[in-house]
Amino acid sequence: MSDKIKLSTESYKGVRDFYPEDMFVQNYIFDTWKKVLESFGYAEYSASLLEPAELYRAKTGEEIVNEQTYTFTDRGGREVTLRPEMTPTVARMVAAKERELAFPLRWYSIPNLFRYEKPQRGRLREHWQLNVDLFGLDSIQADTEIISIAYNLMKKFGAKDEDFEIHIGSRKFLKELLAKLGIENESDERAKKLYKLLDRKAKIGEAEFENGLKELNISFPEVEAVGSSEDISQIMKLLNDVDVKSVLFDPGIVRGFDYYTGMVFEVFDTNPENKRSLFGGGRYDDLTAIFGGGKISAVGFGMGDVTIKDFLETRGLLPKYKSATELYICTLDKTFLKPAQKLRQSLREQGLNVAVNLTDKKVGDQIKIADKQKIPYIVVVGENEVSSGTYSIKNMETGEETKVVIAGITGIIRSHS
Amino acid sequence: MSDKIKLSTESYKGVRDFYPEDMFVQNYIFDTWKKVLESFGYAEYSASLLEPAELYRAKTGEEIVNEQTYTFTDRGGREVTLRPEMTPTVARMVAAKERELAFPLRWYSIPNLFRYEKPQRGRLREHWQLNVDLFGLDSIQADTEIISIAYNLMKKFGAKDEDFEIHIGSRKFLKELLAKLGIENESDERAKKLYKLLDRKAKIGEAEFENGLKELNISFPEVEAVGSSEDISQIMKLLNDVDVKSVLFDPGIVRGFDYYTGMVFEVFDTNPENKRSLFGGGRYDDLTAIFGGGKISAVGFGMGDVTIKDFLETRGLLPKYKSATELYICTLDKTFLKPAQKLRQSLREQGLNVAVNLTDKKVGDQIKIADKQKIPYIVVVGENEVSSGTYSIKNMETGEETKVVIAGITGIIRSHS
Repeated sequence: MSDKIKLSTESYKGVRDFYPEDMFVQNYIFDTWKKVLESFGYAEYSASLLEPAELYRAKTGEEIVNEQTYTFTDRGGREVTLRPEMTPTVARMVAAKERELAFPLRWYSIPNLFRYEKPQRGRLREHWQLNVDLFGLDSIQADTEIISIAYNLMKKFGAKDEDFEIHIGSRKFLKELLAKLGIENESDERAKKLYKLLDRKAKIGEAEFENGLKELNISFPEVEAVGSSEDISQIMKLLNDVDVKSVLFDPGIVRGFDYYTGMVFEVFDTNPENKRSLFGGGRYDDLTAIFGGGKISAVGFGMGDVTIKDFLETRGLLPKYKSATELYICTLDKTFLKPAQKLRQSLREQGLNVAVNLTDKKVGDQIKIADKQKIPYIVVVGENEVSSGTYSIKNMETGEETKVVIAGITGIIRSHS
Repeated sequence: MSDKIKLSTESYKGVRDFYPEDMFVQNYIFDTWKKVLESFGYAEYSASLLEPAELYRAKTGEEIVNEQTYTFTDRGGREVTLRPEMTPTVARMVAAKERELAFPLRWYSIPNLFRYEKPQRGRLREHWQLNVDLFGLDSIQADTEIISIAYNLMKKFGAKDEDFEIHIGSRKFLKELLAKLGIENESDERAKKLYKLLDRKAKIGEAEFENGLKELNISFPEVEAVGSSEDISQIMKLLNDVDVKSVLFDPGIVRGFDYYTGMVFEVFDTNPENKRSLFGGGRYDDLTAIFGGGKISAVGFGMGDVTIKDFLETRGLLPKYKSATELYICTLDKTFLKPAQKLRQSLREQGLNVAVNLTDKKVGDQIKIADKQKIPYIVVVGENEVSSGTYSIKNMETGEETKVVIAGITGIIRSHS
C-alpha cells in the first residue's frame, strides 16, 4: 500500500517511550508509591483515561477544558476528554457507590494524565501521578495522616529531612485574614490579589512582598498579626507525635482556591539552586456534591512521576539499572540447546528469571549480548556440564566464577542480589 | 459556576472503572503476566498511548484508521491516534534504536489499547493486553519459545492441559498449498476465499467446509495431501522437548495475512459451549522495514485482559479478593490514637500494611468498617493493651484471637496468609 514511505521512528510530541532502562526507573517509582500507600492501609483503584468532557466543565470551566485539555467529539457525538487530573474521576466513582462503600475510604491510584500545552522540562503532555485520598473524615487527624504519608514517601525514596520542606497552609487562616482586613469574600479583587501575592511570597522575596501589600493598602504587621491558626497548630502537634519532620506553617500556600476548602500543603525541594514545589494537596470537601449525592469530606494529594524523578536524579537517589533477567544460559553449540532448555526449566521452577541463547553465535558473542543487556550472571552449557551436572556460574560484574550443581545455582545468584 | 447541574456518575461508554476489588483481579492478571515473562528472560518496555496516525495508516490503511480507531487532530494540526495495538509502537521503538540494542531482544509490555466500536461482551473500547515479542531471530527455536510462553502462561493461571488447545498453523504451509492448487499468489480471489474458508473451518464444520472447497473447484483430498509442513513438525518436536502439551497442527489458522509471514498460532478454550479463540500470535518479519532501517525478524503474541478474565471466571480460576491492608487498628476511644499510631509505625517498619481508626465511632462500628473492607485482621488498642504491651489479634474469618506482644504480630498475620 505505502511500502515506499519511510515512517518516522519518533514518538508523538511531548510523550515518552520507555525502553527497559527507563521502565526500570518508572517501575521503581511506582513500586515505591504502592509499597508506602499499602503500608498505610490504602487500597488501589483505577479507571479509564477517557472521561465525558462534562466532568471537567462543571468545576474547571469551558475555556480551560477547551484550551488546556485533549477534548474531542467521538463518532457518537459524545465529547470526550483525556483526563487532565484524577480527582474528578475518583469523586465520580465514590459518588456512584456512596451507599455501598464503607467510609472512611483510603484509596490510591497511579493514573496517566494529559494536558495540551507546549512541552518543556518537567511539563510533558502525558505524565503519571500518584493520587492519594482519604474520604469521609473531616478532621485534623485525617489531614495529619495525609501529610504523614507525603513525608514517608519522601523518606522511602531516600530523601533526608533537610532535602525537602513541607509547607502547610490553611484556607481557614486565609478567611480569618480577610475578615481582619475587612475584605468580605474571596472573590473580591483585593482578596484575589492578596492570595496571588501570598502564593508568590517565596519567589519574590520579602521586600517585593511588602511592596505588594502596600499597593493593596495592607500593612505587613496586619498580616503577621493573624499568626498561625488553631487547626494548623494542632496538625503540627499531631505530626510531631508520629515523628514527621521538615514541616512548617506557610500562609503563602494557597493552591487552587475554588477547589480546596481547608488545610493545604506543598512539598518543596530545599536545593538552593532550584527551590521548586515538588507536589502538594489538601482538603476538598465539596467535590462529590456535583453528582447530586451527599457531600463527602476528602483530603489528599498528587505526586507526579516526572518531578519526583528529576528530584531523585539531582540528589543521586535513583537506583542503578538491574535487568530483571538474572541468568543468561549460553550454549557451546546448538546441540546443547535441549539440555540448556531443561536447565532453564528447573531454574524457572525455583523462581529464577532465565534467558537461553537461541542464536548460532560463538560463546564469546553470546556473552557480549548478555553483557550489553546487563544480565548479571551467565553460565555456559557444553559437554562437561552435561556429563558432570556441575555448572560454572559467572558473575559478570566481578568476574567471579562459582562451580555448583543445579540445586545450588539459585542460591549463588540470590545471595549476591 | 454550574453547581446546579447534577453530573452523571457513569463512566464513558465502553470503558471500565476499577474499584479495589476489580483492581485486585486486574493486578492478579498483570502480576501473573509479569512473573511468567520475566522468568523467561523478557524485559518490560512501555510507551504512550498517543501515536501519530501515520503509524497505522502505513500498514492498516486509511479506512480502518478512520473508522475503527480513535483518531483526532490536535491543535497543532497533528493527527493523533489512541493506539489500537502495540506492535507498530514496538516496531517503531526497535527501529529507532536498532544500532544500540543487543539482539536477540526479548521484550514484553502491558499497554491499554483502544478501538472505536459498539461495546459488547469481551469487546470493550479500551482493554489491556500483554504483548510479547522476540526480535532478531528467524528460527523455529524462537517460534517454539513464544509458543512455550503462551503455554506456560495458561498453566500459571491454573488452566489444565485439557482446558485449552494451541492450534499452530503456517503461512509457509498455506503458500505450498496454493502452489499445489496452481494459484499464483495470495492476493488472488480464489486464495482469499480459501483462506477465509480455512479460517472458518472449526466454526462451520466438515460438511460445509467441503462444500466451500467444491465451490472453489478444490477437492478435499487435495488439501489433505499437502499434509503438515516440515517447519511445523520440527516446532512440534521442540515443544515436546520442553514439555509443552495441548498443541496441534491446524491449517485453518490464518490470522491477518498481510501481517504474519511464518508460523501463526491461536489458543482456544476447549469449553464445548464456548470454543472460542482466547489469544494468538505468530511471526511477522517485515514490520520494522517501514521505518527504513533493516528488516528485523520478529515473533510474538498478544493476550487481552478481558478475554483471559472471562476464561478464568468461567473455569473458577480467579483468586478470591484479599485486601492489601493486613490489619485494622481499632481505638477504644480517641485518647488511644497516639499509641495506636505508634503501634502502626512499628508494624509498618516490619513490613505490615496497617490502617488505623481515625473516626469517633464505637469499637463495634470500627470493626464493621474493617469487615466491610475485607481486612483480614483487627486489633483493639485500649488501656489494657497500652499498659501490658500485649495485643489480641483477631482473625476476622475464623474469629480466632491470639494474644501477642508487638514483635509477634507480623508473625501471626503472615503465618496465615
